Amino acid sequence: MADKAQIQEAIKTQGEVVRKLKAEKASKEQIDEEVAKLLELKVQLGGDESRHQFTLKTAKGTRDYNPKQMAIREKVFNTIISCFKRHGAENIDTPVFELKETLTGKYGEDSKLIYDLKDQGGELLSLRYDLTVPFARYLAMNKVTNIKRYHIAKVYRRDNPAMTRGRYREFYQCDFDIAGQYDPMIPDAECLKIVHEILSELELGDFRIKVNDRRILDGMFAVCGVPDDKFRTICSTVDKLDKMSWEDVRSEMVKEKGLSEEAADQIGQYVSLQGGMDLAERLLQDAKMSQSKQACAGLTDMKQLFSYLQLFQVTDKVVFDLSLARGLDYYTGVIYEAILTQTGPVPVAAAQNGAGEKAEEGVSVGSVAGGGRYDGLVGMFDPKGRKVPCVGVSIGIERVFSIMEQKAEASAEKVRTTETQVMVASAQKNLLEERLRLTAELWNAGIKAEVMYKKNPKLLSQLQHCEDSGIPLVAILGEQELKDGVVKLRTVHSREEIDVSRAKLVEEIKRRTLDV
Amino acid sequence: MADKAQIQEAIKTQGEVVRKLKAEKASKEQIDEEVAKLLELKVQLGGDESRHQFTLKTAKGTRDYNPKQMAIREKVFNTIISCFKRHGAENIDTPVFELKETLTGKYGEDSKLIYDLKDQGGELLSLRYDLTVPFARYLAMNKVTNIKRYHIAKVYRRDNPAMTRGRYREFYQCDFDIAGQYDPMIPDAECLKIVHEILSELELGDFRIKVNDRRILDGMFAVCGVPDDKFRTICSTVDKLDKMSWEDVRSEMVKEKGLSEEAADQIGQYVSLQGGMDLAERLLQDAKMSQSKQACAGLTDMKQLFSYLQLFQVTDKVVFDLSLARGLDYYTGVIYEAILTQTGPVPVAAAQNGAGEKAEEGVSVGSVAGGGRYDGLVGMFDPKGRKVPCVGVSIGIERVFSIMEQKAEASAEKVRTTETQVMVASAQKNLLEERLRLTAELWNAGIKAEVMYKKNPKLLSQLQHCEDSGIPLVAILGEQELKDGVVKLRTVHSREEIDVSRAKLVEEIKRRTLDV
Repeated sequence: MADKAQIQEAIKTQGEVVRKLKAEKASKEQIDEEVAKLLELKVQLGGDESRHQFTLKTAKGTRDYNPKQMAIREKVFNTIISCFKRHGAENIDTPVFELKETLTGKYGEDSKLIYDLKDQGGELLSLRYDLTVPFARYLAMNKVTNIKRYHIAKVYRRDNPAMTRGRYREFYQCDFDIAGQYDPMIPDAECLKIVHEILSELELGDFRIKVNDRRILDGMFAVCGVPDDKFRTICSTVDKLDKMSWEDVRSEMVKEKGLSEEAADQIGQYVSLQGGMDLAERLLQDAKMSQSKQACAGLTDMKQLFSYLQLFQVTDKVVFDLSLARGLDYYTGVIYEAILTQTGPVPVAAAQNGAGEKAEEGVSVGSVAGGGRYDGLVGMFDPKGRKVPCVGVSIGIERVFSIMEQKAEASAEKVRTTETQVMVASAQKNLLEERLRLTAELWNAGIKAEVMYKKNPKLLSQLQHCEDSGIPLVAILGEQELKDGVVKLRTVHSREEIDVSRAKLVEEIKRRTLDV
Repeated sequence: MADKAQIQEAIKTQGEVVRKLKAEKASKEQIDEEVAKLLELKVQLGGDESRHQFTLKTAKGTRDYNPKQMAIREKVFNTIISCFKRHGAENIDTPVFELKETLTGKYGEDSKLIYDLKDQGGELLSLRYDLTVPFARYLAMNKVTNIKRYHIAKVYRRDNPAMTRGRYREFYQCDFDIAGQYDPMIPDAECLKIVHEILSELELGDFRIKVNDRRILDGMFAVCGVPDDKFRTICSTVDKLDKMSWEDVRSEMVKEKGLSEEAADQIGQYVSLQGGMDLAERLLQDAKMSQSKQACAGLTDMKQLFSYLQLFQVTDKVVFDLSLARGLDYYTGVIYEAILTQTGPVPVAAAQNGAGEKAEEGVSVGSVAGGGRYDGLVGMFDPKGRKVPCVGVSIGIERVFSIMEQKAEASAEKVRTTETQVMVASAQKNLLEERLRLTAELWNAGIKAEVMYKKNPKLLSQLQHCEDSGIPLVAILGEQELKDGVVKLRTVHSREEIDVSRAKLVEEIKRRTLDV
């Protein structure tokens, strides 16, 4: 390790670099990088002068949740969890980090986004990238061959954060998966039903669920004359159709990926198609498509899927869309993705960045749920390669949070961050002990109660606290009330006050706060 | 990087090492270390042969939670959260990792247990070690000067795991803290009231809450003639009194830490003292103690604290114990720790390791909650060093889980892992569509319902699933029922069946499962 003097020298120089970049208004990324180097030097040096200048931030791409955000988050989670429970799901949890090797070779080129832990001796560890691979590891490790489970937890991706659009490096996933050997498309249909229920209940505006099948895609590529070794890379180009025009996608296929123009154009024919069961039937008759066994298998299942979706009454939102590809390697059958079609409210930050008008034109927050069938993943972990067929869906909750936060900002009624039913207050001095005694009585009776941590607080400040945090009732103690064995119970919004005997107080508070 | 051949060679050699250690029944730690090295080599090599042999485990010191464990965990969390809400706490969340620097210099020598992330460019990050330092960072960063909040999340310590005693490297903490400038000991008393409520409600058996004050400890050291620069190290020796005899503690002080025998013996006099308000009063009169301003301040507050604890009716479990020291550096005033005094049930694993009889003699699972006042921590983050007084408590939930799991094992009634109210079944073939249609009707009416993902499941297997997972009702469909527009509703435990009209079914299921 270099000596103090050297480091201090290095810090000075690096400090200049940072100041210069800031002066030049260099890109945030560039500045962050240099600041990080500076930070690193200061950590080496230790000592205080570093701390105050730098630590007052959270890590790049992460955020704290304040009480208001947590109140909203709790509401959203309750909606999602009760849906999962309504469908009979069990709950599991896995560690936030896995052996590095467990994640190796599961995410294709996205693997570069995995967070590794520092090698401090012992095992090589990485933060989980999603909840699906740990789930597959769990199944293989515990020899579970069928389970319907949900798992709600944070996952980690060293991606370029776009926090205004609700894209973070640490974010929640809410996963529901069905593992087991069952008759075709029944669990798959339930997953889509769940997406439909959750997005409807969250009232995020109108949405659409695109459905496709990896076998249909691969079959299509085959009959369009895509060489086998180009399937994946062409697939990932097709995946860009939600962001890029067909012209741009086509030229990427031809110019960058060396696909023949004929093949590209044939693909163009197919990926423009959208429909329902009817489309699946048409394609089964399609001269070219019908030549591919894979495609036919996928199309037959797609018909089956839609028949179940009709029973579930969710076909109004579901579209069979041949342009849906999805990135992840491990999908083997049906794939789906839900998008919000309405203009979401404009995230404040975005608006500030002048993205306002774009939003009004109707910017979509993009995919809010996605998933599919992955019948091969568990086998990758099983010593004997035993397969456990799985299908699941993941709700991308951060975007939902951003929208809900905006709604809350917009709406008049303010979000409560506590559930306190009553404030124990006093107008007179020297009643702290009486206030504490009564508060304890209420706590012991299961009442949610607060008391000010002051010997002699002003009544006004006690009432103000109720106004601010939406506490509906105040129990006011005074010499007279104590003599009479009563409490003055005040309703905050109406300001109406009545005397209630100590004996009846708990009951009265419960009666008046049934809704809380 | 070495070439493939070299690595393969190294893998072979390392493989031998591991096999040899296993043959010699070497210590688990030792084997783990060597296996990790082997693993590392195989990761370098990549390829499949490594995966199947090794990844089927979770990282050292971590565990998965299966549905049964999650059901128990949910119950425990609900008890704790409703207590926190009863006391009017708001909820916040912070990222799982912080800038490394944020954690630097907060944990004394425990800092070596912090998990660092690998430097992949950008900022240097570490996994949080507790929830207190991130909370202080949050307060300073958001200029919050008073808040009552709870935070339930996982923290990370590269400690030697003792999983049989519920000690892990990844574990939950449930923290409740009160930040703000208030009159002395009122928030402190509420924290102790909360510990009392939670440990009582969890029914973990009898418990005791030890209380002391950093100022009393320091004052005591001063009047006993401990040199100022030895306070912290002597303090950490005193902290061992719950595990070591006084003799051993004394000799560590004298032999290892070079304290004079006189000083050690004087300390011995004090740390043997336990009591309540009376003891605080006695020590205020104590010739030696009364010479220390610090001690007197601590003792006066201790009296105040006990007077509030009397109002809260919790003095039955609280002991003023001068031997309580607690490790963490950041405490400045009152400190406390709760321990279970009863013999906990014997953890299975422990019993297997022959720790059984020790358990019967009455092994305590040790501390289940702890906390104290830390008035200086926020100031360490504030650019201007502005202080925000804080007091808080942390519930060490993993040990509680272990106990609850044991209780569940012991008790007859089995833990339900789902909340499903009804199973939609059929005795006849070709009724899949009817089952799906009815199930969707129930889901849409908010009923928790399951259906088998088979075209023609056996009635017996459908009923068996209900027995296994505790589903109380079965809605049976048959040709006849469909004709009559009814459903046969079967109560699983009594096997009694009645016909219910489709129109009344939802209402009837709700009526029969009110308790669920």
